[in-house]
Amino acid sequence: MNNNKLTELNEQAIKYIAVGAAVLGTGGGGDPHIGKLMAMEAIRKYGPVRVVRPEDLGDDDLVVPLSMIGAPTVMNEKIPSTEQMTKPLDLIEKELGRKVNAIMPIEVGGGNSLVPVLAAAERGIPILDADAMGRAFPESQMVTFHLDGIDCSPITMADERGNGVLMHAIDGIWEERMARAITIQMGGSASICDYPVSGAQVKQSAIPHTLSLAYEIGKTLFESKELRQNPIEALLMQLHGYALFHGKAVDIRRRTEGGFTRGEAVFEGTDAQKGRTMRLFFQNEFLLATEDGRSLAVTPDLIALLDQDTGMPITTENLKYGARVTAVGFPCDPKWRTPKGLETVGPQYFGYDTPYVPIEELAAGKGGDL
Amino acid sequence: MNNNKLTELNEQAIKYIAVGAAVLGTGGGGDPHIGKLMAMEAIRKYGPVRVVRPEDLGDDDLVVPLSMIGAPTVMNEKIPSTEQMTKPLDLIEKELGRKVNAIMPIEVGGGNSLVPVLAAAERGIPILDADAMGRAFPESQMVTFHLDGIDCSPITMADERGNGVLMHAIDGIWEERMARAITIQMGGSASICDYPVSGAQVKQSAIPHTLSLAYEIGKTLFESKELRQNPIEALLMQLHGYALFHGKAVDIRRRTEGGFTRGEAVFEGTDAQKGRTMRLFFQNEFLLATEDGRSLAVTPDLIALLDQDTGMPITTENLKYGARVTAVGFPCDPKWRTPKGLETVGPQYFGYDTPYVPIEELAAGKGGDL
Repeated sequence: MNNNKLTELNEQAIKYIAVGAAVLGTGGGGDPHIGKLMAMEAIRKYGPVRVVRPEDLGDDDLVVPLSMIGAPTVMNEKIPSTEQMTKPLDLIEKELGRKVNAIMPIEVGGGNSLVPVLAAAERGIPILDADAMGRAFPESQMVTFHLDGIDCSPITMADERGNGVLMHAIDGIWEERMARAITIQMGGSASICDYPVSGAQVKQSAIPHTLSLAYEIGKTLFESKELRQNPIEALLMQLHGYALFHGKAVDIRRRTEGGFTRGEAVFEGTDAQKGRTMRLFFQNEFLLATEDGRSLAVTPDLIALLDQDTGMPITTENLKYGARVTAVGFPCDPKWRTPKGLETVGPQYFGYDTPYVPIEELAAGKGGDL
Repeated sequence: MNNNKLTELNEQAIKYIAVGAAVLGTGGGGDPHIGKLMAMEAIRKYGPVRVVRPEDLGDDDLVVPLSMIGAPTVMNEKIPSTEQMTKPLDLIEKELGRKVNAIMPIEVGGGNSLVPVLAAAERGIPILDADAMGRAFPESQMVTFHLDGIDCSPITMADERGNGVLMHAIDGIWEERMARAITIQMGGSASICDYPVSGAQVKQSAIPHTLSLAYEIGKTLFESKELRQNPIEALLMQLHGYALFHGKAVDIRRRTEGGFTRGEAVFEGTDAQKGRTMRLFFQNEFLLATEDGRSLAVTPDLIALLDQDTGMPITTENLKYGARVTAVGFPCDPKWRTPKGLETVGPQYFGYDTPYVPIEELAAGKGGDL
């Protein structure tokens, strides 16, 4: 699935990654269209960005994740400037007294997969082909670095007005509290660098080659059209995934609260699935899909909504009444299935009263009763 | 009133200042008892702290205000450690790349008058005999530095757990928003350095000799007891103040919201004032006193509640049902009576639908209808 051949981010790569990242984004991770627009503009102005693989890093290299934090509903309205994206980098370089060797996406899912491109292009810094989620999650501490006890500090943030913040948080939970409070004050979205890591820490804790994975997913969806293949079938093959439900959206409740987009959506089955009903729960990302009191897929496994005709992913923000979708699920990175992983991003953390059952077992008819 | 003779903060000086600062604190500024306890402990451990006057500063000296931010209700429960008080200083020295020459209280009113003593004693840094309010106010931008357009950044904050924050805010209003949000996350109170200033800026914008003033007020109240003088009369003479009302508290509504202690209290007249009713409105500080729809005293002029017997000041927090008090008022520093001053701390800012009328005019029977 990963051929690790992604060596630079050019227009073609950005087009593919934007779509692949929207699949991996499970509805969230920031609007992929905004990430794509920012990245395209950046490489048109500054040229393509070089991609480095984790295995090419020196152990002492400084790698800094750069992303947007906040509610996707707000990010759609406020496209960040170059200054807003480079300011957290400047603040962290000043604090650490050294230059950044590579910028990485904190999450490969959604727009945050491409958010680093603007700063990387302007500064001539390469982007790492890895992330710390292998998908998207809504809170700051929901990263593989947290599972391995890596310090999240220093953390730097900026808004579009010129406000900048540097924090030393005692752990990822405190980062989340303080950074979220600042984000709300900054108008609901902000740029942020957190978990600055060494090359050695990347090799130990990051999820490798996820930009390549997003690229390959996007390539599959675009090429299946040309090859007249069924894009959803091609995708499920590629990701070892499962079709969960075919239907149309009949009820969507979405609210922006506490710096998140939260809510649920209801789908009625169509065609062969007429009479069935699926409920989908989200906090920025799709986190739980159920049918008649049984789980179909549970966080941290991935849930995506795909357009029935094109196979193109649909975000939490852009889901509309009447949309005809296929819900698909696929297994998360094994790091999330550990006790600490499930404590951090399992269904109980998000307040869902249901146990985690791996999607392979749910698909095989084992477990899943709420 | 100011003899500028305060050269060091020893136990006697701290005892006087704590009481004088509670008068100038108009009910807020942090609990003076907590400030006193912290300061006493510090000088017992490290020895007295030297006091410098504004006129003794070099124009290029670095002067850093250090205070507690938050709701007094919370501060009563969480006495800060030495580490919590020195951490914002360390962060600001690191950011500015130089040592602090003097620490100053941001507000002379309440416990914040003495909060700098702990860090000053531990670090051997003198304290400045000046502040940026001449009283206490609830929000960060309510300082004379703000009136003169002085940059509030860098701002540094710390909590008791080890979390630290450095902010570059574009102005004092943005500082207030972000610092207040962080304070709430930090559990409702935090230590903070803001408006780092030069000696020249102190001379231009600070209110001089206010620690000396607090000392003199405390001295008056303590000595009047020994001299069998009426302490309240002595105080009104000293501060060119006015007795507003004699009565007892019959209703107190106090809530902690948005990082503040807000509410109002109602007093019924006693003795010669039987039949009269005074209402007192507060947001950390007493901001407006009214009787029968007429203002008795209006922010930014100072309002204090004094115990009828001892003349000792009573804070917003410690006001109890049935307390017999004399409400007094006295004029604020002229800087607050300018258009920019009134825009920043006048009654409209706090949401009171009443014009500002100087207390001298209200006492002379001019204006004051709500």
